[in-house]
Amino acid sequence: MGENDRNDKDKGSGEKKYVYLFEEGQAGMRLLLGGKGANLAEMTNIGLPVPTGLTLTTETCKAYFLAGKTFPGGMEEQLWAKLALVEKKIGKTFGDPKDPLLVSVRSGAPVSMPGLMDTILNLGLNDETVEGLIAATGNPRFALDSYRRFIQLFGDVVMGVEHHYFETALSAQKKAQGVREDKDLSADSLRAVSQAYKQLIHQQAGEEFPRTPKRQLLRAIEAVFASWYNPRADVYRQINKISEDLGTAVNVQCMVFGNMGDDSGTGVAFTRDPSTGKKALYGEYLMNAQGEDVVAGIRTPQPISKLAAEAPEVYGQFKEICGILEKHYRDMQDIEFTIQNQRLYMLQTRNGKRAAAAAVQVAVDMVGEGLITKKEAIGRVAPADLEQLLHRRVDPAAKFDALAVGLPASPGAASGKIVFNADDAHDRGGEGEKVILVRPETTPDDIHGIVKAEGILTSRGGMTSHAAVVARGMGKCCVCGCDALQIDTANKTVTVNNLVLRENDLISLDGSTGRVILGEIPLVDPEMSEAFRTFLQWADELRTMGVYTNADTPADAVKARELGAEGIGLCRTEHMFMEQERLPVMRQMILADSLERREAALDQLLPFQENDFYGILKAMDGLSVTIRLLDPPLHEFLPDSEQLALAIQRRKLIAELGRPEAAKTAETKETEALTLPELEALLIKVRALREANPMLGTRGCRLGVRYPEIYRMQAKAIFQATVRLVKEGFNPKPEVEIPLVIDSQELSIMKRLVTEEAERAAAAGGVKFHYTTGAMLELPRACLKAGELAAEADFMTFGTNDLTQTTLGFSRDDAEGKFMVDYLEQKILRENPFAVLDEEGVGALMEIAVSRARAVKPGLTFGICGEHGGDPDSIHFCHRAGLTFVSCSPFRVPIARLAAAQAALGGRDE
Amino acid sequence: MGENDRNDKDKGSGEKKYVYLFEEGQAGMRLLLGGKGANLAEMTNIGLPVPTGLTLTTETCKAYFLAGKTFPGGMEEQLWAKLALVEKKIGKTFGDPKDPLLVSVRSGAPVSMPGLMDTILNLGLNDETVEGLIAATGNPRFALDSYRRFIQLFGDVVMGVEHHYFETALSAQKKAQGVREDKDLSADSLRAVSQAYKQLIHQQAGEEFPRTPKRQLLRAIEAVFASWYNPRADVYRQINKISEDLGTAVNVQCMVFGNMGDDSGTGVAFTRDPSTGKKALYGEYLMNAQGEDVVAGIRTPQPISKLAAEAPEVYGQFKEICGILEKHYRDMQDIEFTIQNQRLYMLQTRNGKRAAAAAVQVAVDMVGEGLITKKEAIGRVAPADLEQLLHRRVDPAAKFDALAVGLPASPGAASGKIVFNADDAHDRGGEGEKVILVRPETTPDDIHGIVKAEGILTSRGGMTSHAAVVARGMGKCCVCGCDALQIDTANKTVTVNNLVLRENDLISLDGSTGRVILGEIPLVDPEMSEAFRTFLQWADELRTMGVYTNADTPADAVKARELGAEGIGLCRTEHMFMEQERLPVMRQMILADSLERREAALDQLLPFQENDFYGILKAMDGLSVTIRLLDPPLHEFLPDSEQLALAIQRRKLIAELGRPEAAKTAETKETEALTLPELEALLIKVRALREANPMLGTRGCRLGVRYPEIYRMQAKAIFQATVRLVKEGFNPKPEVEIPLVIDSQELSIMKRLVTEEAERAAAAGGVKFHYTTGAMLELPRACLKAGELAAEADFMTFGTNDLTQTTLGFSRDDAEGKFMVDYLEQKILRENPFAVLDEEGVGALMEIAVSRARAVKPGLTFGICGEHGGDPDSIHFCHRAGLTFVSCSPFRVPIARLAAAQAALGGRDE
Repeated sequence: MGENDRNDKDKGSGEKKYVYLFEEGQAGMRLLLGGKGANLAEMTNIGLPVPTGLTLTTETCKAYFLAGKTFPGGMEEQLWAKLALVEKKIGKTFGDPKDPLLVSVRSGAPVSMPGLMDTILNLGLNDETVEGLIAATGNPRFALDSYRRFIQLFGDVVMGVEHHYFETALSAQKKAQGVREDKDLSADSLRAVSQAYKQLIHQQAGEEFPRTPKRQLLRAIEAVFASWYNPRADVYRQINKISEDLGTAVNVQCMVFGNMGDDSGTGVAFTRDPSTGKKALYGEYLMNAQGEDVVAGIRTPQPISKLAAEAPEVYGQFKEICGILEKHYRDMQDIEFTIQNQRLYMLQTRNGKRAAAAAVQVAVDMVGEGLITKKEAIGRVAPADLEQLLHRRVDPAAKFDALAVGLPASPGAASGKIVFNADDAHDRGGEGEKVILVRPETTPDDIHGIVKAEGILTSRGGMTSHAAVVARGMGKCCVCGCDALQIDTANKTVTVNNLVLRENDLISLDGSTGRVILGEIPLVDPEMSEAFRTFLQWADELRTMGVYTNADTPADAVKARELGAEGIGLCRTEHMFMEQERLPVMRQMILADSLERREAALDQLLPFQENDFYGILKAMDGLSVTIRLLDPPLHEFLPDSEQLALAIQRRKLIAELGRPEAAKTAETKETEALTLPELEALLIKVRALREANPMLGTRGCRLGVRYPEIYRMQAKAIFQATVRLVKEGFNPKPEVEIPLVIDSQELSIMKRLVTEEAERAAAAGGVKFHYTTGAMLELPRACLKAGELAAEADFMTFGTNDLTQTTLGFSRDDAEGKFMVDYLEQKILRENPFAVLDEEGVGALMEIAVSRARAVKPGLTFGICGEHGGDPDSIHFCHRAGLTFVSCSPFRVPIARLAAAQAALGGRDE
Repeated sequence: MGENDRNDKDKGSGEKKYVYLFEEGQAGMRLLLGGKGANLAEMTNIGLPVPTGLTLTTETCKAYFLAGKTFPGGMEEQLWAKLALVEKKIGKTFGDPKDPLLVSVRSGAPVSMPGLMDTILNLGLNDETVEGLIAATGNPRFALDSYRRFIQLFGDVVMGVEHHYFETALSAQKKAQGVREDKDLSADSLRAVSQAYKQLIHQQAGEEFPRTPKRQLLRAIEAVFASWYNPRADVYRQINKISEDLGTAVNVQCMVFGNMGDDSGTGVAFTRDPSTGKKALYGEYLMNAQGEDVVAGIRTPQPISKLAAEAPEVYGQFKEICGILEKHYRDMQDIEFTIQNQRLYMLQTRNGKRAAAAAVQVAVDMVGEGLITKKEAIGRVAPADLEQLLHRRVDPAAKFDALAVGLPASPGAASGKIVFNADDAHDRGGEGEKVILVRPETTPDDIHGIVKAEGILTSRGGMTSHAAVVARGMGKCCVCGCDALQIDTANKTVTVNNLVLRENDLISLDGSTGRVILGEIPLVDPEMSEAFRTFLQWADELRTMGVYTNADTPADAVKARELGAEGIGLCRTEHMFMEQERLPVMRQMILADSLERREAALDQLLPFQENDFYGILKAMDGLSVTIRLLDPPLHEFLPDSEQLALAIQRRKLIAELGRPEAAKTAETKETEALTLPELEALLIKVRALREANPMLGTRGCRLGVRYPEIYRMQAKAIFQATVRLVKEGFNPKPEVEIPLVIDSQELSIMKRLVTEEAERAAAAGGVKFHYTTGAMLELPRACLKAGELAAEADFMTFGTNDLTQTTLGFSRDDAEGKFMVDYLEQKILRENPFAVLDEEGVGALMEIAVSRARAVKPGLTFGICGEHGGDPDSIHFCHRAGLTFVSCSPFRVPIARLAAAQAALGGRDE
């Protein structure tokens, strides 16, 4: 701040300072100069070879929009004054027809923002200055090609003339000259292309291509600002929760040329492998090429290691600079460089985006290297990113032939139907269909489709191509540069070795090996790397909240325990009744018209339940298992009334119309098995149990109050399983949870029932065992009455899914996909409250509950077991609210461990 | 208290004092001595002629149950010691075979409690003492009849031998003697009946009828205690919210005999008319009869006025005593008396139960008479009782012939189907059917049926019979003693003038005139009496909270204004769209697949809405009209999906099976009008709009957020109506309310829309007008965020129906009639939270909201417009919570005015 303040006004003038020379900035001024600008300044100041230049601040951008898209007063004067200093330093002058200064213009926001304006290169060329460039370089073809490229880029990006017009004009020229490749065009032809381009711009844009370099520069700066609000940037900001208020800076830098011949080139490199984190330079370069050629993926570049042979001196210098930058920034760097006639120039450095595996490996390694502390390491990884480490991958035992192998651009595996454009991927993926987006290459325009696809497959582009970078960032499986594929997006076919695949054909991708496979492939659960284990151990050392899991089966329990779960925070019992052999008995129980019949059905269910609990308690031997008694409304176990009514009507009509032989076509399996009187009896019961708002109906412990025999059977099953395990030498820890409580009297009645069954089982088995009884707080009244409830409860957990539904009055089934969209779009809600805990409503009730309950029972155990228990932001809230543990699905356990550690550290490095 | 404490121990003994002589007590000792005992003591002490006696305290009852149904130590000794003092005073001895002391034994709880043990008379008689009584009175028939009655009553009430056994034995004796009436039985026959009764008891009860008077007395006392927990008493306590912990006292009083000949008699009387409150003795008596004969309604008694002629001296004395008692107690009294050989004895006095009209009239008159203050008058009437004054009554203009005329025992009017027993009345009435309970007479066993019936009709019993008293207490219409009816409960017929009515026949009652009418009769709204108006004016002077009404039509608005409403707190707009000519347009609006079509339909709805608002705002000229914008989910306006699916299947099957000529039988009117493709298209839309939990779905201002054009149309209609009225010289005060808000951003968007329409209408009309925009708080989050909401709101009201649903997670549709029953029975909830506001849950949120909102906007207007706004207990809470107004249905406005006044006075006299 102090630093910024001092520089905030231009010396003496009292005017706001809009323009900084690189040497006036530093890395800490990221908010003002943007990430790129701040790092260019930093590199300049630590003496690295950076082409000189200047940065227009993000404040300029904000002032520009505030003034209704007008440059703020004094900005232009500052720009020309600073540019003059640059000219002086480099010894060339902007617009000099003898030896013109050329610049690149690039956007640079405070946070990395794909979607902003592309780089404009070679700005400063016009019909006069291009002759100066020819003279100065002695290379007319280079100069004229640079001019041609500049006009095309400027016309497209700044003046809005679509790309394809230029392609057509270029093709026409190639045809006219009888050549196939751009590089075979003569200097004269290129000169003709430039003129054709300018005419094209005049026609399409309705104005002349700007002649003077200063005009070009101002227009380019405006275009960068305008790109801040383009739709791609909007989408990216939304997905990544980036504030609109940041604005972008603009970097104007002297050109260096990677396309000045075979001793020139350009490349990008990471200081470590961004997929695995391995400590080795990792990147790509192209000789005789200009910047964007590598990133755009249009030509497939060479791996950086080959540069050692091709240009050993430059490679050595580059490697040394990489080391300096890593030490300086104490993080892995993502670097752009250009070689101009064997001289190395650094064009950009930034902390490198990385796959989660790499993030973990780099963090652990850097602790080992003494670069950062364990706490810093924990702060370096976004918890949500860990999800990709927990993705399932291709079963190594599975046998299949790959159709083709591309670059392993983003790990994981995916299967889905082929779609050929981002819109289809977005629409069909959005509806829950599994689709693989197949494109020759991707562009920022495709982001909305990439988000919704299971995986991405491209035929062009390298490991740093757009598709690869974006997919890694999202933890989405991606195979890139698979050039064995011929992709025809117009006709929607992919051809590989004479096999033609079409839209909707099923394929699989293995993003860890680059394999493309026909059909679906078997997947297995992920294994944790050594670094990942170490990393999570550090997280465990730092965190203060427990991490439990939500698991209903022994298999889930085992998995969760492997992933570090310290107990089960929520074991739902309803799924147990849905199983094929149990559902009919469950139905008998529900449809019973006397207590005796209901108890007879429950007796049949008891052994199933006992074995369920036996398995889970055994899997979690020694750890708490919170078992929630039956929760959903009973009619969830019954068939749909409309289907029954339709079947009844169908049969009656068939009989009535004298066609009894007509088949029971179109009946469901469910109804086919029943006679007409059975159907009619069933319909009456189903209708009697049907509820207007089942979410607020006869469910949770209301079932236990109304039909105590059901809860009694469950308690019996729990404690009989417990007794068996104790006798077998295990240490089961059942914690019985009463769902949907609203009052201490209710909890007390339910607790008495549980206690009776526990004592009965203990007496019958002749053993003692540990057990507790607790309450699930899922309704506002439970939170408000937590003080009284605490007197009856050994522990409490928040069921924040239901608590969100009632606090906001949002039925999840009805909100998502309906009015929720409006609420997010109109910014009434910042987040979907079912994904990220609503702190102001739901959170406020939780805080009331914790404080009232602990006033009665200090230190009472509190957990959260809604889906929020696996969401990093919500976990931070839970930490602040003083919860004892969070509970989440098994695969989110590592995420929760990390998020809890970061919460204990007071936040994560962003 | 001090008084009680001093008397709490028996003198010197240090032992708890269980038995009080009448002269040791006083009226203030009601909790200890019961109402009856305290009043007998009071009357004794002010020198009225009360047969002497003693009272066993309520503490004795509690100690008895606490000790496992054993008399507490020392009680018996105290009893016999005090009884000795009574014997001394009256000069007779208990069990004296020459001239025995006889006593009555009666229950007496601190609050009046029908359902407790009946009085036992003549206790002290046995085979020996009855001869003493013959000797002492010289009236063998009287003595033997008294003995026979005593055995019967004791056998029934104390020893549990059913009534009908005694009736059978008596009939057998009458048959044997060839007589028809009891009174024609000779002394010897009566002696034989006594012996037969005793044998009967031995057979049925398995034990001998107790011979010694002391044993009889102890058994009778135990029977009184036991009756505290009998089912009738339980029901009464539940209905009237009386604590189980009070216990009952037992009064043992020397017998006086109303059946000692034609110069003896017994009666009951009110000091004023308990139906109308008119200041005149009101009661009945029977000569030569014993106490219970009058109350039980077995013989139809004479009006008290006739006593003036029959026994002028006694009547004069009685009238004087009535005056003394009214002045002494400062309230209308309900008095029991007996005349024994021309001597008047007072057996009981208590504040008289009265119909609401009487309560109001008496309260107003007593202020006029200087007996009580206005504040006391306000405290004398239970607000809920006013409902009966607001009952509709028979249209005076209607022409019909009465089938018969009985006693106008409880005012109001009712129509319903005939049922012949209390169980049927309870079951069918409980299911919402309108039934009239028709009985020869009613007993406390019938209470559960009386509660659920629309009205009560009896052929026997007077204005103070059980049916009459109970019905008046409940504000239920009742016609008594209609002896033109022959009621055969076994065959379920009522015969009147050769017309035989059967179960389920429809009849009507006019409780104000006693008319019984065949079929249904037209009713009209009630008119307020002068006293009622005065009374409510006093209430208005005392209360600090406003009383508004919930009204959706001009007619309701007019009615509510007449009843004292000071504004409309809730005008719902959804019913307006349900009207026949509007619903199709509403559907077009909902089914529209483009904004244009939706707006076209809304344009059609606009004039309807404008006229709706015009009418209501005009009716409430000068007063606030809070108009809630559209609230319910849109699918409420659409047909049922199952009906559509059935119709589609039916038509298709008929076509498929080659019987296209078959009729569209069983289709609904709804579907018949549509073609198959229309049905199919409609079904798709209906399914798309269907919600899993509509209560928590796309409703309230979510409609306004998603389809702003709907709210815009409503706002437009409101303000166009306002402009019209202003131009016509009225003073409309629309207050636009946004329902179901959760966030200030949402409210702000809605408010902007309303403001725009208001400004547009004002500009177009060229007039200025008052309007406000407020929020309805119906969700927990709204209460928690009330601080932020307050910044955007001009007023707020609590929608406590929905707030109760979400706070407790109770769908009203699903809870009532399902699990709510269990919750009330198992005492998890004290009250139905939809009837009486749940203070601990919903109330806690309301208090949070008021305090957070007023911290931002001191004095912000807060109202309540759920049904709780008309419930007296809830109104007390609203007063304490600092609400500005309550709003309730028009007919509850007077109730709310009174309850609000009582709340301001800090409570009501109970």
